[in-house]
Amino acid sequence: MQEKLNQLKAILAEVYDLSSAAALLGWDQQTYMPSAGAVGRGYQIGTLQKIAHNKFTSDQVGKLLEDLATYQKQLDPDSDDACLIRVTDREYKKQTRVTSEWVENFARETTIAHQVWEKARSENDFASFKPNLERIFELRREYSSFFIPYEHVYDPILDDFEPGLKTSDVQEIFNALRPQQVELIKAISEKPQVDDSFLKGAFDQSKQWDFGVSVITDFGYEWNRGRQDRAAHPFTQTTGVDDVRITTRIYPDELTAGMFSSMHESGHALYELGVDKALARTPLATGASLAMHESQSRMYENLVGRSMPFWEFYYPRLQDTFPSQLGNVSLEDFYRGINKVEPTLIRVEADEATYNMHVMLRLELEIALMEGNLDVKDLPDAWNAKMVEFLGIIPPNDADGVLQDVHWSSGLIGYFSTYALGNLISLQLWELIQQDIPNLSDQIRKGQFGELLDWLRRKVHRHGAKYEPQELIKRITGSKIDPEPYMRYLNSKFSQIYNL
Amino acid sequence: MQEKLNQLKAILAEVYDLSSAAALLGWDQQTYMPSAGAVGRGYQIGTLQKIAHNKFTSDQVGKLLEDLATYQKQLDPDSDDACLIRVTDREYKKQTRVTSEWVENFARETTIAHQVWEKARSENDFASFKPNLERIFELRREYSSFFIPYEHVYDPILDDFEPGLKTSDVQEIFNALRPQQVELIKAISEKPQVDDSFLKGAFDQSKQWDFGVSVITDFGYEWNRGRQDRAAHPFTQTTGVDDVRITTRIYPDELTAGMFSSMHESGHALYELGVDKALARTPLATGASLAMHESQSRMYENLVGRSMPFWEFYYPRLQDTFPSQLGNVSLEDFYRGINKVEPTLIRVEADEATYNMHVMLRLELEIALMEGNLDVKDLPDAWNAKMVEFLGIIPPNDADGVLQDVHWSSGLIGYFSTYALGNLISLQLWELIQQDIPNLSDQIRKGQFGELLDWLRRKVHRHGAKYEPQELIKRITGSKIDPEPYMRYLNSKFSQIYNL
Repeated sequence: MQEKLNQLKAILAEVYDLSSAAALLGWDQQTYMPSAGAVGRGYQIGTLQKIAHNKFTSDQVGKLLEDLATYQKQLDPDSDDACLIRVTDREYKKQTRVTSEWVENFARETTIAHQVWEKARSENDFASFKPNLERIFELRREYSSFFIPYEHVYDPILDDFEPGLKTSDVQEIFNALRPQQVELIKAISEKPQVDDSFLKGAFDQSKQWDFGVSVITDFGYEWNRGRQDRAAHPFTQTTGVDDVRITTRIYPDELTAGMFSSMHESGHALYELGVDKALARTPLATGASLAMHESQSRMYENLVGRSMPFWEFYYPRLQDTFPSQLGNVSLEDFYRGINKVEPTLIRVEADEATYNMHVMLRLELEIALMEGNLDVKDLPDAWNAKMVEFLGIIPPNDADGVLQDVHWSSGLIGYFSTYALGNLISLQLWELIQQDIPNLSDQIRKGQFGELLDWLRRKVHRHGAKYEPQELIKRITGSKIDPEPYMRYLNSKFSQIYNL
Repeated sequence: MQEKLNQLKAILAEVYDLSSAAALLGWDQQTYMPSAGAVGRGYQIGTLQKIAHNKFTSDQVGKLLEDLATYQKQLDPDSDDACLIRVTDREYKKQTRVTSEWVENFARETTIAHQVWEKARSENDFASFKPNLERIFELRREYSSFFIPYEHVYDPILDDFEPGLKTSDVQEIFNALRPQQVELIKAISEKPQVDDSFLKGAFDQSKQWDFGVSVITDFGYEWNRGRQDRAAHPFTQTTGVDDVRITTRIYPDELTAGMFSSMHESGHALYELGVDKALARTPLATGASLAMHESQSRMYENLVGRSMPFWEFYYPRLQDTFPSQLGNVSLEDFYRGINKVEPTLIRVEADEATYNMHVMLRLELEIALMEGNLDVKDLPDAWNAKMVEFLGIIPPNDADGVLQDVHWSSGLIGYFSTYALGNLISLQLWELIQQDIPNLSDQIRKGQFGELLDWLRRKVHRHGAKYEPQELIKRITGSKIDPEPYMRYLNSKFSQIYNL
C-alpha cells in the first residue's frame, strides 16, 4: 500500500509542478510580460492546465484512490497521508463528474463574455452583455447538474471555493449578520463625517513602496521566499512552498491603497509560506479555502493595519516619511481618516463597515439567478434595488452597478461570499488570539508581530488544506463560522470613532 | 495525410508550450526568483522537460512521422510543412536513440559535478574535480556510441548544436583560421599598446542602462515583444514568437560590459523575433543553430557596435552622458580603446582578435579527450601549454585555467566551436550585406539600422530552423562556412588601429 501511496504522490507532485509552473506564468503575465506575449502565454497556460487536469483525472489516479480507500481508514485521520488521500479522493470525484465538453464550452463562452463585458462596461450597455451572461448562468446550472442530488443548486459552485460549506450555511450566517450591519451603517450615517482629505495629495511612490515593505517585513514576510512587484490588480501567487510572491499598486496622488494592499497580500502570503513543508508538492500545500485565506489577509490589513496600536508605532514613522502632508495631522485624526465609513459603489473601495454588504448583495442575486427566480434581463433593476436597500445609494449607471467588475463575465460565480466569510473568521480567530496572547496590543504597539505569526502558523497555516474550512475553524475555535465576533468588533470600533 | 500532419503539429505545439514555459521558469530563476525558490523550481523545470521529452519521443510521434515520410517527399522541399516533417524526423531519430537510463545518469552526474566544480574552482583544486570530469567524458563517449556508426566520436555531440556539421568540417575551417589569427596577434603584440584607461572609473549605472536601451531600440528591438533585465550572466530567452527577453549586466566601475552585452543579446533576440510567425509553436520557431545565432549577436556587438561609423553617431551622445569621464577623450582614442587587443585568460573577456583562440583551444582539448588521446589527469598541463601556444600567456593557476568556466562541469561539451563559427559566419553575411546595401556605413553613421535588420530578416531570420546551418549559409552566400572573410576583416581593422 505504501508503494501505491508513493505512486499517487508522484503523480500529484507532477500535477503540482505543472500547476505551480502555470502560476508563475500567470504572475509574469500580470507583472513583466511584454504585451505581445499574451497570445503565446494563453497557449502555454492552457497546455499546462490541460496536462495537469488529464493527469489528475486519469484512470490511474482513480484506481490508486480505490486501492487506497481502506488503507486510508486504518491511518490516523489527522495524519498527512490520511488527509492527502481523503482530499485527493474528494477532488478527484468532483473533477471526474464534469464532462470535458462542459469545460471546453465554459472556457470558450467565458473568453467571449469577457470581451463583450469589457466593451459593454465602457459603453454602459448592459443589453449587449445580457445574452452572454445568460449563457454563463445556464452553463453554471449545467455544472451544478453534474452533482445531482444536491441540497441547493448553488451548493456545487460554492463547494469549489469552500469545500463542505452549504448555501444554507451561508444564508444562515448572512441572515444573522445583515440586519446588524445595516443598523450600524445607518447609525454611522446619522453622525458627523470624519475628515480624510489629508490622505489625498502628492505622495512619492518610492517612499510609499519603502514604507509598505518595512511594515510587511516586520509582519514576518521573508524576502528570500518571496518578492513584491507592482500589478494593476494586487494578488498573491504561490509557485512553491518557498516562493510566494505578492503584488501591490501604488498611486501617486493617494496614500492608503498601496500600503493596505501590501498588508492584505502579505497576509495571504504568510499563510501559504506557513504551510508545513512536509506537504510540499501535494494538493494540501495551500490554504484550506478562500474564506480561510481572506481571514488571514483581512486580519493583517484591518485588525492589525487599521488599528490604533499599530499606528501608535508606525504613525510617527509615516509622518517622518511624509512630513509636509502629515506633519500637522494628529494620530487620532489619521486613525479616524483611514477608518472613515462611507457607502461606495464597489466592494474593493469599501470600508470595513460596508464591505460585507457588497458581498451579501452579490450572493443574493447569484442565488436567485441560479434558482431561476431572477431573470438576467431584470438584473440591473434588482442590483440597484439591493444597493438602495443595503447601502442607501444607487449607482449612477450600469457600468458602475451591475457591470462593475470582472467576476461574472469570467464565469466566477460562487465565491463572492468568501470575501465576507473571511472577515467573520478573522474575528473568531482574533478573539482567541487575544485570549492566548493577552498583551498582543502592547506587542503591536512596539511593532512586534512574531507571537501573532507564531500563533497563526501553529493553529492555521501549518495544516494547509488538510481540513475543510468549517472543520478547521471548529478545531481552532470550537465553533462554526459565526458572525457575532465580527459584529462585536465593528460595533465597538465604530462606536468609538463615530461616538455612537 | 493533412489530418496526420495536424495531429503531429498538435503534439509539437504542446511540446513547444512546455519547453517555452520551462524557458520562462529559467528566465525567472536568473532574474527575479527569491533564493529559496530554487528547490521547487528545479522540480518544476524537471517535470516540464520530462513531459515534453516523453511527448516528443512517444510512439505516436514515431508512427505519424513514418506515415508522413512519403507525403513529405511530395511537398515542395522548401515548404514549411516539408521542413517541419524533415527536422522533426531528424530530431526524433536522435532523441529516441538515447536511453532514458543515460539521460538520468547524465542529469545526476552533471548536477553533482557542478557542485564539485564550484568548490574545486574556489579552492583551485583540479584533483578533486578530476573523477567527476572523467565520468562526464565517459558519459559523453557513451552518448556518441548511441550513434554508431559515426565518422568521428565528436560528431554526435557537435551535431546537437550544429545540425549536419562534422568534426572534420570544423577542423578544416579552424586549421585555415588558426595560423592567420596567431600571426595577427603576434604582429599586434609587437606594436605599442593603445590606451583604454578611460573605460574604467565610476559610471552611473542607470545612465549606462539607458544608453544601452537607446542603442538596441535603434537596432529595432521591439519592447512590446521583449524586455531587458539584469542577470549575473547575460542571456537571451525565448518564451514564444512574440516574447523574447534579454538580460545584461552593468558594472558601476566600468563602461563597456553593459552596453556590449546589451547589443550582443539584442542580436540573438532580433533573430528569434524575426522568425516567420507561420512557424509559431513548432520546433522550427527558433534559430538554425548556435553558430547562426552567434553570427547575429556578434554582428550587432562587433561589426556594428565596435565600428567607427557606429561611434561617429553615438559617441557624442555617450560623451554627453558621461561628460566628466569622456569629455576629453577623442572619438579616435575611444574607438581604439574599445578595440584594444590583449590576450586574456578567458573567452568572455576576449577582444575580437583573440576570441577565437579560446574556442580553438577548447575544441582541440575536447576532441582529444573524446578520442581518448588525452587523459583528464593531463588536462591542466595540456590547457596551459595550449594557452602559451595560442595566446602567449599562461594561467597563474587552474582556477583561472582549466577550471575557469561552467561548461564542462555541466556536461556542455560539443558546442564551444559555435562561438567561433558565429564570428566567421557574421563576416560572410556582412560582406554580402555591404554589397546589397552599399551605403550601409552611412546609414549606421546616422543611427539607422532598418535596412540592415530588413536584410537579416529576409535572408536569415524568417527561415527559423527550417534549414541546417551549412545549407542556410550556402543558400545565402553561395559558400560553406569560410574563415577568409573574417580574417580579411580582422586584418583590415587591426592594421588600421595598430598601424601594422
